[in-house]
Order: sequence, then structure tokens, then C-alpha cells
Amino acid sequence: MSDDVTELKQRLEEAFREATKLYQTRGFQRRIGFGRKPALVNVDLANAWTRPGNPFTCEDMDDQIIPGVQRLLEACRANSHLVVHVTTCYQITDRENPHTDMGLWHHKIPVEAVDQSKPELWAIDSRIAPVEGEHILIKKQASAFHGTYLASYLHAAGIDTILVTGVTATACVRQTICDGLADGFRPIAVKECIGDRIPGAVDWNLFDIDAKFGDVESVDQCVHYLNTVHMRND
Amino acid sequence: MSDDVTELKQRLEEAFREATKLYQTRGFQRRIGFGRKPALVNVDLANAWTRPGNPFTCEDMDDQIIPGVQRLLEACRANSHLVVHVTTCYQITDRENPHTDMGLWHHKIPVEAVDQSKPELWAIDSRIAPVEGEHILIKKQASAFHGTYLASYLHAAGIDTILVTGVTATACVRQTICDGLADGFRPIAVKECIGDRIPGAVDWNLFDIDAKFGDVESVDQCVHYLNTVHMRND
Amino acid sequence: MSDDVTELKQRLEEAFREATKLYQTRGFQRRIGFGRKPALVNVDLANAWTRPGNPFTCEDMDDQIIPGVQRLLEACRANSHLVVHVTTCYQITDRENPHTDMGLWHHKIPVEAVDQSKPELWAIDSRIAPVEGEHILIKKQASAFHGTYLASYLHAAGIDTILVTGVTATACVRQTICDGLADGFRPIAVKECIGDRIPGAVDWNLFDIDAKFGDVESVDQCVHYLNTVHMRND
Amino acid sequence: MSDDVTELKQRLEEAFREATKLYQTRGFQRRIGFGRKPALVNVDLANAWTRPGNPFTCEDMDDQIIPGVQRLLEACRANSHLVVHVTTCYQITDRENPHTDMGLWHHKIPVEAVDQSKPELWAIDSRIAPVEGEHILIKKQASAFHGTYLASYLHAAGIDTILVTGVTATACVRQTICDGLADGFRPIAVKECIGDRIPGAVDWNLFDIDAKFGDVESVDQCVHYLNTVHMRND
Repeated sequence: MSDDVTELKQRLEEAFREATKLYQTRGFQRRIGFGRKPALVNVDLANAWTRPGNPFTCEDMDDQIIPGVQRLLEACRANSHLVVHVTTCYQITDRENPHTDMGLWHHKIPVEAVDQSKPELWAIDSRIAPVEGEHILIKKQASAFHGTYLASYLHAAGIDTILVTGVTATACVRQTICDGLADGFRPIAVKECIGDRIPGAVDWNLFDIDAKFGDVESVDQCVHYLNTVHMRND
Repeated sequence: MSDDVTELKQRLEEAFREATKLYQTRGFQRRIGFGRKPALVNVDLANAWTRPGNPFTCEDMDDQIIPGVQRLLEACRANSHLVVHVTTCYQITDRENPHTDMGLWHHKIPVEAVDQSKPELWAIDSRIAPVEGEHILIKKQASAFHGTYLASYLHAAGIDTILVTGVTATACVRQTICDGLADGFRPIAVKECIGDRIPGAVDWNLFDIDAKFGDVESVDQCVHYLNTVHMRND
Repeated sequence: MSDDVTELKQRLEEAFREATKLYQTRGFQRRIGFGRKPALVNVDLANAWTRPGNPFTCEDMDDQIIPGVQRLLEACRANSHLVVHVTTCYQITDRENPHTDMGLWHHKIPVEAVDQSKPELWAIDSRIAPVEGEHILIKKQASAFHGTYLASYLHAAGIDTILVTGVTATACVRQTICDGLADGFRPIAVKECIGDRIPGAVDWNLFDIDAKFGDVESVDQCVHYLNTVHMRND
Repeated sequence: MSDDVTELKQRLEEAFREATKLYQTRGFQRRIGFGRKPALVNVDLANAWTRPGNPFTCEDMDDQIIPGVQRLLEACRANSHLVVHVTTCYQITDRENPHTDMGLWHHKIPVEAVDQSKPELWAIDSRIAPVEGEHILIKKQASAFHGTYLASYLHAAGIDTILVTGVTATACVRQTICDGLADGFRPIAVKECIGDRIPGAVDWNLFDIDAKFGDVESVDQCVHYLNTVHMRND
């Protein structure tokens, strides 16, 4: 970590400490807690985001995010918890075509980089790939819930808690968590398994999320929960 | 047409005439009209619905619905109107799996019949197949709008009118039209291009739609509109 | 009942019997069943619909629908089940105002009849009025779910089953049931508590609903379920 | 401004400069631009947020946000642009009641502070109150779009651009902008008219928004646009 980044992160920690005082006084930063039936929702952990060389490539993949998600997947599979692998791609990536399924988003970010006809770009990273019985959900916008059947699907399955991992903290992960809460789920942001591209983005966005939208919890705590939730419900 | 069916349709026509009197007095059955920028939305005109031998197979395909849709497609392509081909399939069709993307719908109808791993079932009928630049939308529920990005996609493209064809009148077509209106579009049900499986279902569902949710118009009128809307907007 | 209506209803029953044969062969008309935690959703049982003299006035209110809903309310209140009273009204009912919250629906039906500034029109009928702790939901479109927080609200409360009553079978009740299923709830249409304005409309819409979207059950069965569901879950 | 806050803001500016280099290289931070037909969406500029003494009270109201919104309102009214006043309140604010319309959000923030039976709390600030023909929208969650009819309403009115003001940058404003883009609108965040409670929150959230979801523009630019958009469209 460069000196600049270290210093930024220290400065943010100070700001968060001050903000926490106000939030605590005002009644924010409450705990939503783990519920009775969880699902793991991995957001955009596909090659365009997890591997080098793409406009969407994110930091901290190989030594932190992927290993953390592997531990979560193992705990889900051992306990038959629902897993959803979310990715993003488009059928019409010609930015001049007024009929593109990118909607208006290509006016802000390079979504034309993920062409549905090139599945190697939007395929889930092979190190954390779906197994039989796990669902792959293709979305078009930031949120895994907006314009998808994710809420219906999870509710029909009786899910009340979503453990969210992936990228980016600034966009798709944050939107998925905010929408998840609004759709009636308890969102848990898995701290070490959420990434981004620019220094401070994970810190600030997780701080906002924890203050208002979902609990930020460690991989260790989440794995423990996934392994013990059946017992708790007895 | 069997005598029974003929008689049923006559009896329905009488009922519709009586109902129309009440509706007209009360201020229902107004005209929503064609708007400035149309899209064609073909609902579930995929092999499981258009070809014989499937639980989903519908009536009137070869001599009425498919030829009508061909005329609409021709007019859309000649005038660069947006076309969306909607179909339905599922990744997890084991009804005992509590994590299926069929949600709860398999508790009412045989949605397990359209397995995503068998694309020959849910592929758009080859006689009316998509061409380059036309979008294929996969849905999970009846409505082409519910749990999909269709509304966002059409709004981003500036569409204000949807011409809806396909099957069934009772389920996916009706839900698409009702949601289309609720999402801010002018829905037009293309009369000859909407089908079902049981006698009377098209008649009464189109009657309900025309009374409350969208205008029922002929293929001729729709083709004329598609060919002239550019001129109207000048 | 006039002879015409009696004859129509008989003719429809015959058609439903024939259709049932096909549906049963094809795997439709399955039972979704009552779930573990119900809510009662009364749709548009407000004065404009339940009392005489309005364009929206419906049939069978005083001797059938209201008494049935009273029995359901009693069972809900005795067992602390969630009740939602849904109604419809608009802030801007000038049809020439392009900014009206009626959206485009006034181009089909007389929604300008329910002005938010005249609460006597859209207030829930006093015979089945909300009590402390019951929610009133104002909607703008047919479905009680579309463009409202109903799905989030019910899911956050852990509800998995909705008992739906009200008017009309053709529009708001049917849309609420179809969306309820799509949102992951088990919809139950309470047979005697659903009304409309035109002969046959309740019959054919309930037939379609029962075939594809939710179970049609009697008030007796629903009251029994509301009174015993706590025991079933033990 | 305290020395701490000044230093935080400087440190954030440096971080944003570095991040901008990466974003520019990768193709982020594109301009979405002003469209053809705007609406002004004021988010939660109600007394609980704009006046002192509430858990929700925000900073910079009297000398910055309110005067800026007054200028925007004036330009909208002079040019007949649609204005939506969004606020938040709940019918059931007993946190022990499992049937509350607060959903799960009271597990994170003090939403029980805005009781629908106390309209003085959630009424729009009288300095920027609605006039005849302007709509008041009540929401339950952070986003003005989620679980509301806002998207349908704006699309039915032909709106393609939303100018968003209000509080907070961290929650309701950001969510409204992200959902607005996803729903097919061009979102413009009005820089001086967006507030929050903690130092740096406006800066960081507007930076994220401008990078990925909508353009951040000054009141001056927005007022100019509102006054000239009719001419542009000619």
C-alpha cells in the first residue's frame, strides 16, 4: 500500500470515528442481524472484474476476495444454502444503437465492454464457479435486484437474509444491498469479500452501508453463521 | 370450429354487447391510441408454445398468429422499429428443489416443461426469429415486465407504445399488457396475433383488455401504423 | 338473476368443464395451497366501489361481499393476522394536465372519479373499516403490488400467503393475484368476496386465476384456515 | 468549517484527483447530459430533515439548500416543468409490531421518528412547499423510485431527465439517482442542493454518483437548462 493510500485510509478512519458519534446519538448504525434462512449473493465476480486487463478489473482479487468467497461457498454447499452468481452482459453493445439493452448506463460507464457474445468476459471466475443447482443471474443495471427476478426468487425460496460479496463497493454491491433491504431482506456485507478500483472506495461505501443499509461482518463470522444457522432455528 | 365453440362464441358476443352498454355509460372502454414511438413485443412465440406436442402448445399458430407476426416484423424492420422477442425458461426445473427459479409458479402450471438446458423448447419459432439487433428477453413469470428490465429498456429507448402479440391471452399476453399500461406505455393488443389453448379465452381476455387496459387493433391497422408513424411525427 | 345471465353462466360452466379437461391433461390447475403465514388483502373496497351511484359501483356488495369480508376480518383480528386495506385515488385528476398521477390509465377508464381531495370516495367502506394497527395502502394502478411497497412490506413481515378479496375480478383483484404470485406469495382468491360490474366477469376471471395464478377458495375454508394456521405450524 | 473538516475535504479532493485519472483511463465518468423533458425531484426536504431538533436534521439547509431549491422551483414553475415533492412517513411506527410499514429499515435507522399521524414532521418545508398541480409522493424506503409509482408517473408524463435535490447524499438522494438511471432517466444531481449530516458524506457520494450514475451540475447550470430547454427542443 502506498503512503498516500495509507494516509487516506487513516484520515477516513478518523472521519468515521467522528461520524459514528453523531450517528450513535441520533439512533443510526443499528444492527439488523443475521436471520433464519440465508442466501449467498456473489455480485459480478466474473472474469471482466476478477482478472487483469479489462476496464472493469478490480483490486484485491487473488489474495483476498476470491479466497474469502471460496470459504463462503464451501460453507453454503456443506449446508445446502442457496447461492446466486450474478453477472452482467449485454446483447446490443453498439453505443450508437438506440435500442441497446445497456439502457442509458453506457453514458456513464463502459458497459459496452461486456458483450453477451463473448461469454469468457462475463463468465463467473472459474475459481468460484457455480456447481449443479446454483443459479446464474444476468443483470443489466448496477443492482442485482433492479429489473431482475431476484427478489421474487429469493422470497419464493423463503430466504430472509442475503450475504453479499463482489464488486464494486461503489456500484453493484452497494445497490444490491440497498435494494435488498428495501425488498425485505436482512443484508450482510461480507467485509473482506467486497472490492473496488480506487483507494478508499471500499472503506467509505462499507461505512455508509453499515450506518444505514446492512451489517458489515467478517468472513469468519459469516462462515460461522452459515454453519450454525440450522441449529439456531431448532 | 365445433358447434359447441361456435355457440359459446355467439353467447359471449351477446354478453359483450350487454357489458359494453354498461361500460359506455360508466366511462370505460376509452381509446388510449397509438403513440409516437412503438416497439413490437412478441410474447412466448417459442417452440414450446408454437409447435405441437408440448403442454404449452397453443391454437391458431400456423394459419393466423405466425403469418400476422411475420407481417408486423416486416413492417418493423422496414422502419427500424424496436422488436423484443420474449421467451420463458428455467435453470432449475426440479420441482422438489426449494431453490428453483420457477418461484412458486410450478405449483399452478407446468413450467418445468421449459428447461433452459433444452434451448430447442424455448427458442423463438424459426419462422419469426430475431435478426441482428433485435433483443431476446428471458422472463420467469407471466408478465414480460415483472422481474425484467423491459420497462427500463423501452423507456431508455424512448418507446411510448407497445404492440403486443403472442400467447397466452389468459396469462402472459394479458399480464404484459396490464403491466405495460401501469409502466406508462400505450398497449395495443394485436387482435389476430394473440392465442390460447381453450375456446373463448382469447375472446373474453381481449374484451377485458379493451375495456380497461389497452386497445385491441387488427394486424392491418397495426401494420399501417408501423409504416406511417414516422410521417405522423413530422 | 335475469334469464340471460342465468343462461350465460350455464354456458360458461360448460366451457369451463371442457377447458378443465384440457388443463388437467396438460398439467395446469395445480393447487398452490395455503402457506404458513397469511395476510388479508382487501382491494378497493372503498365507497366509490361498494356504494351505489359511482361509475365504479360494483354488484353483490351488501348481501355477499361485505358480509364475507366481515367474517374474514373477524378471523384475522382474533388471530393477529396482518390486514391491508387497499384503495385508489389521485392528486391530479384534471385529464388535460400532462403531469397527472393517473398516468395513462384515464385513457381507458374513469379514474378521474377518485379525487384524493374527496376522501369520502376512496375511504374504506365503514362496515369493513381498518382498526388500529391495520394498514391502508393507496395505489395508482390496478395491481396492489405494482408501484407500491406491498411486496416489501409483506415480505418484511414474513408473510407467505395472501387472501385476496374485493373488486374488480377483471382488473384490480386479478392483477393483485397475478403479481402476488410473481412476487413469491401463495395467492388465494376468496370466492364469494370478489365482485365486478358485468355478468360473467367474476366467473371467467376466477376460472383463469384458478387455472394459472392462485387457488379459488370459499369464505368458509379461508376462515377455517385463518383460525387454525397457528396450530398447523406447531 | 472546523480544521478537521477542512483537512478531510482536502484529503478527499486529492483522492478524487487520483481516482479520476484511473476512471478516465478506464472509460468511466462519462457525461449523460441534460435531456429533452425534465422533472424536478426534491427528496425528503420535509421538516424532520430541514429543521433543527430531529434525529434526521441535516446540515446546510438555511443558507444553501433551501435557497437553491427555491431558485429551481421558480424556474420550473415559470416553464411548467413537472415537480415532485418526495417525503417519508409510516403508519405503524411501533418497532415491536411485526406488521409495520417501516419494513426492516428501523433495524438500521430511526425511521420511527416520522409518524404519519404527525404531519408537521413529514410535511414539505413551507419555504419550498408544493403549489397547485405539483405532486407529493410518500415513500417508505430510501429511493423515491423503489416501491412507488414514480417511474410510471414520470414516464407517462414523457419525462426523460430528473434533477434531484434533497437529503441525504448517503441514502435517499443517492438511491433515487441510481434507481432513476436504472429506470431509464438521465439523472442530474444538483450540487449545492444536496445535503447530509456528517462531514465528507456529500463529497464522497457526489463523486461516486458523477463517476457512475448521473452528472453533478450546479444550480446555475440547472436553472439555465430549465429556462432554455423548450428552445433547445424546437
